[in-house]
Amino acid sequence: MSIECLEQKSKMRFPVSLYVLSVLLGFLCVMLVCLWSGTWRGGFAWDGSFLQFNWHPVLMVTSLVVLYGNAILLYRVPLTWSRWWSKLAHAGLLFVAGVLSVLGLCAAFDFHSANNIPHLYSLHSWTGISTVALFTLQWFLGLCAFLLPWTPLAFRARLKPLHIWMGMAIFTLSLITSLSGINEKLLLTLNGRNGSNTEPYTALPAEALFANSLGILVVIFGLAVLSILSNQKWKNPEFENETDRVSMMTYALKLHYVTFPSTRGRLFKTKA
Amino acid sequence: MSIECLEQKSKMRFPVSLYVLSVLLGFLCVMLVCLWSGTWRGGFAWDGSFLQFNWHPVLMVTSLVVLYGNAILLYRVPLTWSRWWSKLAHAGLLFVAGVLSVLGLCAAFDFHSANNIPHLYSLHSWTGISTVALFTLQWFLGLCAFLLPWTPLAFRARLKPLHIWMGMAIFTLSLITSLSGINEKLLLTLNGRNGSNTEPYTALPAEALFANSLGILVVIFGLAVLSILSNQKWKNPEFENETDRVSMMTYALKLHYVTFPSTRGRLFKTKA
Repeated sequence: MSIECLEQKSKMRFPVSLYVLSVLLGFLCVMLVCLWSGTWRGGFAWDGSFLQFNWHPVLMVTSLVVLYGNAILLYRVPLTWSRWWSKLAHAGLLFVAGVLSVLGLCAAFDFHSANNIPHLYSLHSWTGISTVALFTLQWFLGLCAFLLPWTPLAFRARLKPLHIWMGMAIFTLSLITSLSGINEKLLLTLNGRNGSNTEPYTALPAEALFANSLGILVVIFGLAVLSILSNQKWKNPEFENETDRVSMMTYALKLHYVTFPSTRGRLFKTKA
Repeated sequence: MSIECLEQKSKMRFPVSLYVLSVLLGFLCVMLVCLWSGTWRGGFAWDGSFLQFNWHPVLMVTSLVVLYGNAILLYRVPLTWSRWWSKLAHAGLLFVAGVLSVLGLCAAFDFHSANNIPHLYSLHSWTGISTVALFTLQWFLGLCAFLLPWTPLAFRARLKPLHIWMGMAIFTLSLITSLSGINEKLLLTLNGRNGSNTEPYTALPAEALFANSLGILVVIFGLAVLSILSNQKWKNPEFENETDRVSMMTYALKLHYVTFPSTRGRLFKTKA
């Protein structure tokens, strides 16, 4: 890391307390969704029953909201790790998120299959499956572009803005899907039908109040993450410089070609 | 407008085709939601029946998604209008959006009252009412801070980042609420109960396909708007300079107070 970069890093104004607050908010989201499934909805199993479905909200909120949010926030925290370790931690956290989200999908699909409920009919499932598909594509593209050492730097620099934007779009999609999912689960469960012994959703029983509050907390966590990400002042200069370096190289190369047009395409082929 | 600003404006790289595309996407959203309510759900009325409720999705999507999205995009289009007229158009579009959203809320509340359905029980309604409340607060704060001529420039400069962030947060909340609302309406209507003569949602009839596609289109429109807003290169320099100017003034004032501490609080009171 250059001295300039270290100087810039020491000037970073990112308040770590804000990061701690968002980690706590994320932890609270996981705790509430576990309590909802574990206490109000009867607990967990892996037998195709309602109890297997209970893993679905827990695993999806934990993976594609909380872990994902923390993985993208990692680039704002002025860590003393090298760029390589930060990238590895980002990819690692997202890998765990990916595995948990696939398990979460399996919980829902198994439950549907065991109870003759068609898959992927609701708008919630459409946005959900799009989120997981885009997430997987983004993870593999990110791995190839930013972690494999033989990827050309110019390609990395070109992909980076798209990677950042896609990351935020996928996170927004996760929030949209989570909220419609919690709403859907309450509408389908607290309906006073199917031998349900709970009060209907319209009467706003304690469970509805609890799960609605979980939804609001997920929104607050999501907006806190998006707010930190959108603040230009809190960008980590270490990760900005990569693009600057590549832009400088591209600029130098262009200047060279303009000055010596006959060398175009021959610069790296002197021994060919 | 200064010559420097005009020069910067002429260098703005914002592709107007992208703006036209997002306007078209918004128009398509309004068309589809009108078709859903007008054709699949039986049309419109203002009599407390299901037909009155049909105004709710139309007015909410039109106001807090499409009009709102276009009102915030206005600051990215390199218009030849003055700053004042741009601000007025922004506030005007949002005023229309506000009126339509209140009418949309009335449509839902009247329908609930006429059919003994409690208000504000679902997570959709919780996020929805929060969106409208925050929108109203933001509109009045924006009016006082940025349109009334006697607001101190330093206060404007301080409020601006919060105003921008709140604007994006409210838009994200609108998207979350719209998607959970479309999902909720389909779950409650296409259920094969209450003498419904439609196929259930689980069978994915044509109406469900149509309304799910509307939901996906709303997401695409929303992500397109958020993408345009998050691109730093497309910011209009005319609206950047306001803060710069105020920051310079604040800096000059601080410098003055540091140099002449005895004048603190007396700078604008020489005739008092």
